[in-house]
Amino acid sequence: MADIVAPRTLPGFMELMPREQQLFDRIKGILEETYRSYGFYSLDTPVLEHSDILLAKAGGETEKQIYRFSKGDTDLTMRFDLTVPLAKYVAMHQNELAFPFRRYQIGKVYRGERAQKGRYREFYQADIDVIGDGKLGIINDAEIPSIICDIFGKLGIEGFTIRINNRKVLGGIFEVYGVRDRATDVMRIIDKLDKIGRDSVIEELSGIGMDASMAGELLDFLGLRLGNDGMLAKLGELTGRSAILDEGVGELATLLRYAKLFGVEENHMRIDLTIARGLDYYTGTVYETIIDSHPEIGSVCSGGRYDNLAEYYTTRKLPGVGMSIGLTRLFYVLDANDFIDRSFCSPADLLIIPMTDDVEGAAELSVYFRSRGIRTQVYLEERKFKQKMTYADRLGVPFAAILGEDEIRQGKLSLKDMESGEQVLTDAEDAAGRILAKMGELSGRKILHID
Amino acid sequence: MADIVAPRTLPGFMELMPREQQLFDRIKGILEETYRSYGFYSLDTPVLEHSDILLAKAGGETEKQIYRFSKGDTDLTMRFDLTVPLAKYVAMHQNELAFPFRRYQIGKVYRGERAQKGRYREFYQADIDVIGDGKLGIINDAEIPSIICDIFGKLGIEGFTIRINNRKVLGGIFEVYGVRDRATDVMRIIDKLDKIGRDSVIEELSGIGMDASMAGELLDFLGLRLGNDGMLAKLGELTGRSAILDEGVGELATLLRYAKLFGVEENHMRIDLTIARGLDYYTGTVYETIIDSHPEIGSVCSGGRYDNLAEYYTTRKLPGVGMSIGLTRLFYVLDANDFIDRSFCSPADLLIIPMTDDVEGAAELSVYFRSRGIRTQVYLEERKFKQKMTYADRLGVPFAAILGEDEIRQGKLSLKDMESGEQVLTDAEDAAGRILAKMGELSGRKILHID
Repeated sequence: MADIVAPRTLPGFMELMPREQQLFDRIKGILEETYRSYGFYSLDTPVLEHSDILLAKAGGETEKQIYRFSKGDTDLTMRFDLTVPLAKYVAMHQNELAFPFRRYQIGKVYRGERAQKGRYREFYQADIDVIGDGKLGIINDAEIPSIICDIFGKLGIEGFTIRINNRKVLGGIFEVYGVRDRATDVMRIIDKLDKIGRDSVIEELSGIGMDASMAGELLDFLGLRLGNDGMLAKLGELTGRSAILDEGVGELATLLRYAKLFGVEENHMRIDLTIARGLDYYTGTVYETIIDSHPEIGSVCSGGRYDNLAEYYTTRKLPGVGMSIGLTRLFYVLDANDFIDRSFCSPADLLIIPMTDDVEGAAELSVYFRSRGIRTQVYLEERKFKQKMTYADRLGVPFAAILGEDEIRQGKLSLKDMESGEQVLTDAEDAAGRILAKMGELSGRKILHID
Repeated sequence: MADIVAPRTLPGFMELMPREQQLFDRIKGILEETYRSYGFYSLDTPVLEHSDILLAKAGGETEKQIYRFSKGDTDLTMRFDLTVPLAKYVAMHQNELAFPFRRYQIGKVYRGERAQKGRYREFYQADIDVIGDGKLGIINDAEIPSIICDIFGKLGIEGFTIRINNRKVLGGIFEVYGVRDRATDVMRIIDKLDKIGRDSVIEELSGIGMDASMAGELLDFLGLRLGNDGMLAKLGELTGRSAILDEGVGELATLLRYAKLFGVEENHMRIDLTIARGLDYYTGTVYETIIDSHPEIGSVCSGGRYDNLAEYYTTRKLPGVGMSIGLTRLFYVLDANDFIDRSFCSPADLLIIPMTDDVEGAAELSVYFRSRGIRTQVYLEERKFKQKMTYADRLGVPFAAILGEDEIRQGKLSLKDMESGEQVLTDAEDAAGRILAKMGELSGRKILHID
């Protein structure tokens, strides 16, 4: 006999039990289906790339967290996001792609971070991006919120808010307040507002040479909560004082107007001037999405507009807009909070259970049910009746079809509704009708229930 | 400006152009849908595992080909198949899983092989396995061919043959011929039949002590092509001369009988005593699948029965049966032979093309068409009409909806069938009906056309 190696999975690598994997797949499927409904291409880039490609832009923090190694003469790195591979891809194929190039990618990325609860080293990102050639219309920025709304609607999340800002607006406000040259510092400090409080923020802003009362005024302005029309009006009061501000406000207004036409309800979108999303990448619109009743989860869907996707790989200007969902972490949070409807756990709609030694009838019935679009499994082992029913229970199948001698003689089956316990003696066609009716009911149900 | 790094992808890593990716995804989707229709759980294990886990069984050849590296104190390896991670998973969770445990996994695996045409270092495998607890009924072996048939049918491959053998039958025949103690060598030599020819094989068999005329007889016997009933009759003539042979022949007969009940047509299954599939893993049934008109492609779908899935991780006996499709290589071959129907290339069913500056109507229409289940993209850039139509062509969309001033004034749109060039002025509902009709037509078409 072989030596036994204790079976174990690496810490920080999500590996789900079968029932949870079913739920994960369903959520992933909803994302995929929605991205496709907007006419996005899918893309599937390699997990491994040349290190100089992936690290063309990366700074010290990224380099520490990556999985990098050599094989022969080749310096390899596992991708740590889906944006850098996209940039490489678009630069590589810039003369073959039709622009705007719209792609989604749902794939695993790798970060060697310190493992802790809810933090993963291997996790799924689900990204969409629209890449233009030289320029890209602002209305693309308005389509992203409608995709977010579709996804949340299909998942069953009703109370959510897409917080929207524009980096040009922010830059313009900083200009008006005379600190545009220190924009990065100002933003970094303001980002700490929740953590260190207003007074400490003002103190730090003073530290980089900002007048304290001015700093207070700036904080008040950024923190305004006036509704979208009110915010636009307030921003309008600054018209003419900064060209970049005027441009940004124009973009914000256009985005809000078109998002509505794309079907986004007003209450799901809110201008929030405190949203910045990482300082050196985004150049216009930025988004964050919050589940209203659980803001502590943080943003579950974020993104924005950038001027130059692939500047490290080509001199061609390729602006874009996109968003990303951290699917693995989102699933972890939803599951830990018990927000997921377990009725989607079963791998089959029907388990056929032969009660005699001969499974002929069961085999033939399985072909029929499958042809009707019913996911069908046959229990093929010789076990006691009770063990067979326990198996059906553990699988969580909604229906079991029991085939004993009586049923076979009559050319029928006993269909058991596993939830209600109700059992009827019927024929295959009627059984299929009942199962399909229940499947229809289930498919109308939302997978998430968030209080 | 940043320094430019030449964008490139690692050799041996498939990275498809968008249109080809659509085709790949569709084929992958058919596999997934079929596996699910049989009630298999999906599984998604990590790409990285502890090296001692993945290499518990591996020999020298495997170790040379793997991607293995260290991060901190951890010795990591990228998975090189989906079977070893399955074994780990089942052993780890043996007390929580319901047996038989039926799972499919479609995922990327990694082998640092020498890169050459059609050989990949990162490639998809699409596996299904049924794992029993202690024992697993032989009828499970009969279900696998029905899954293969379903997949090939849905893909559009009509001429294919599942070659079936049983390792017990082979072992029994070797016993009858007095060479069971040298089974591994005999098999290895016979495997070369196609390559080195009959005479050389007989010579080599003589080299390991087999009488030359006996060796010729053995080759004749293994090479018999009598049809399944004929083969079973011929094997039946040996009844009583080897217990293991009798057992294997019984299993073969049961498999053939039940496979028919599971819907497998007789002409898709053929007993072939020369099939062995790697000597030290399989213990009973083995399968290979050949596309009849292109045997040079080799087996596109292989598998079999094994006694002990997880012997390196647990003392519990976990027999199983399964099969695997090398999806990346299969796609490469299908694409290189031009077997794939390009009408499945488009990421959208409809492209809405606004002809005026205002895209209000287009935005609203996109919401409507999407609600009807039509994948809809709006062309949001300001470009000349010709450029917009070129974009539609390059995307390969079946329909374009043109929205000029006239159309907007009348509350209509011009729907253009991009294939026929036919254009009608109509309303949204009628347009949706036409598009859905065409989509229905397309969904009935098979993605593969193999002469």
